[in-house]
Amino acid sequence: MILNDMLDSIREAKKIIVVTHVSPDGDGIGCVTALYKALNKLNKDVSIFIDDDVPEIYKFMPYTEKITRPFDESADLLIAVDCADTERMGNAKNLLRKVSKSINIDHHISNTLYATMNYVDTNAASSSEIVYQLIKILGIDLDKEIAECLYVGVVTDTGHFMYGSTTSFTHEVAGDLINNGASVDKISNTIFHKIKYSKLKLIGRVINNMELYFNGKIAYMEISNEDFTKTNTKAEDVENIINYGRDIDSVEVAVMLVEKEDFVKGSLRSKNYVDVNKLAREFGGGGHVRASGFLKKGTIKEIKEKILELIKIELNE
Amino acid sequence: MILNDMLDSIREAKKIIVVTHVSPDGDGIGCVTALYKALNKLNKDVSIFIDDDVPEIYKFMPYTEKITRPFDESADLLIAVDCADTERMGNAKNLLRKVSKSINIDHHISNTLYATMNYVDTNAASSSEIVYQLIKILGIDLDKEIAECLYVGVVTDTGHFMYGSTTSFTHEVAGDLINNGASVDKISNTIFHKIKYSKLKLIGRVINNMELYFNGKIAYMEISNEDFTKTNTKAEDVENIINYGRDIDSVEVAVMLVEKEDFVKGSLRSKNYVDVNKLAREFGGGGHVRASGFLKKGTIKEIKEKILELIKIELNE
Repeated sequence: MILNDMLDSIREAKKIIVVTHVSPDGDGIGCVTALYKALNKLNKDVSIFIDDDVPEIYKFMPYTEKITRPFDESADLLIAVDCADTERMGNAKNLLRKVSKSINIDHHISNTLYATMNYVDTNAASSSEIVYQLIKILGIDLDKEIAECLYVGVVTDTGHFMYGSTTSFTHEVAGDLINNGASVDKISNTIFHKIKYSKLKLIGRVINNMELYFNGKIAYMEISNEDFTKTNTKAEDVENIINYGRDIDSVEVAVMLVEKEDFVKGSLRSKNYVDVNKLAREFGGGGHVRASGFLKKGTIKEIKEKILELIKIELNE
Repeated sequence: MILNDMLDSIREAKKIIVVTHVSPDGDGIGCVTALYKALNKLNKDVSIFIDDDVPEIYKFMPYTEKITRPFDESADLLIAVDCADTERMGNAKNLLRKVSKSINIDHHISNTLYATMNYVDTNAASSSEIVYQLIKILGIDLDKEIAECLYVGVVTDTGHFMYGSTTSFTHEVAGDLINNGASVDKISNTIFHKIKYSKLKLIGRVINNMELYFNGKIAYMEISNEDFTKTNTKAEDVENIINYGRDIDSVEVAVMLVEKEDFVKGSLRSKNYVDVNKLAREFGGGGHVRASGFLKKGTIKEIKEKILELIKIELNE
């Protein structure tokens, strides 16, 4: 049983390093910070590594100040959460080769099962749901900090319980986290009802430049370096802007292309029937059926042309 | 016990009329339609009365086609849901005087306890939570339709689980409703994730033209006739756009001025300390301390100048 192996490895480990993906989101950060506190309660020596900056919006979360950039090589167990593949870990992928034991906790269907122990539950709406269960099974008491961290993960990865991935178990977890001290008001106001003026100006630009294709079934958005410069924003500010396109009544697929040096970071969302995981794979990426992404060398113009062509086929237009 | 009296009255009744408030919202409509199906399962003769139109957005809900305007006077039991007082019922308040028994199910702290049996639970995040419990206690099986109706009530009255009124019980109810067939995807997409392209373009224009004043404490927005024409939108599309300004982290007061023939329609929102009811009164309007409005003859330019001056004083800038 993989679960028993995981539990044994955690119980035996002395020094544990917990990692999540670059461009960290609420779910990834929620998982690593919750695990930090939980594993400390088991008297483990725990460190957190993310090969990227923590977005401002999540800095109110407990233990985000423990997140470090250079990693500690001496860990005897690595736990990766919410990372579909080793590329997503940034520099931590080198550490993965060195540690004798590793655990991969994730909910992405594109997960490449890269660790010595892989626990991938694609029915989970967030990795935080899985970490919640793991903490329970390890017999660690939930507390206000753990509850807050996991609650952030649960609400951000489900679009505040609005995505179809939301199950009755998601609500069971959320209810238990609230009972253990997660503040709905504080977290909602901090994450969802709080926006920087510069990000709002970026949203305005994206909406103004948005294009519809194929009878309004595609919402196409792009962000160039010039957009970032003119609005004084950066890559992390792009999060969730794609939803403005997705929410248009006529739209089936929303596409967001972001200029990133010689690469283009693509995000795809669909509403009812287009498999955007399949589309993202064409560009070397992946994710979920309704939400996926990729990072591809090239210009926005090239990628735009190719992706519209591929979606056209999917839509039978 | 009021609960036993309520249950007995429902069991004994032959003809039941269920009512909710004018300007009906998701919670009111969710309650009356869920009760319609549930009480039919107890072989009652049920009618629904709302003294107003059902908003387009809720017409996808089961049994909304059973909602009638003229009411049936022959009921022996009236159940009012989500009505804080009899004025909120519109014409149904006249029927309330005629029926021998009435039940008042609500969660508003301002409830005036107007029925022969009053069941007001101010800790409930929605009236749908209370109706859910009532249906369970009556031993009526939940089904897909009842679950959908109540789920709409739960999500709309809690701002999709974001308001501080959300409890672990709210999540317990939501989870059970999902288990009984409420579709998260369908309901979220229909109510929350649906916007016309034209309205989105109006939002983009408003954001692009938005101005901050007094160290970012004021977000100033305006919509001219030209904005409406260029985006193919109308007055009703302005709803909620002011929140884009309000949600900016630095902002205390958001101002929206909309051109309306020779008049200007002003909306004001504040976050923590400015009394915008007082401000709106200076322009012949009013409302609440944190949300108010006015309609004033003049040009946007004139009103803008005056309002910024008044807010400057309030802010001690």
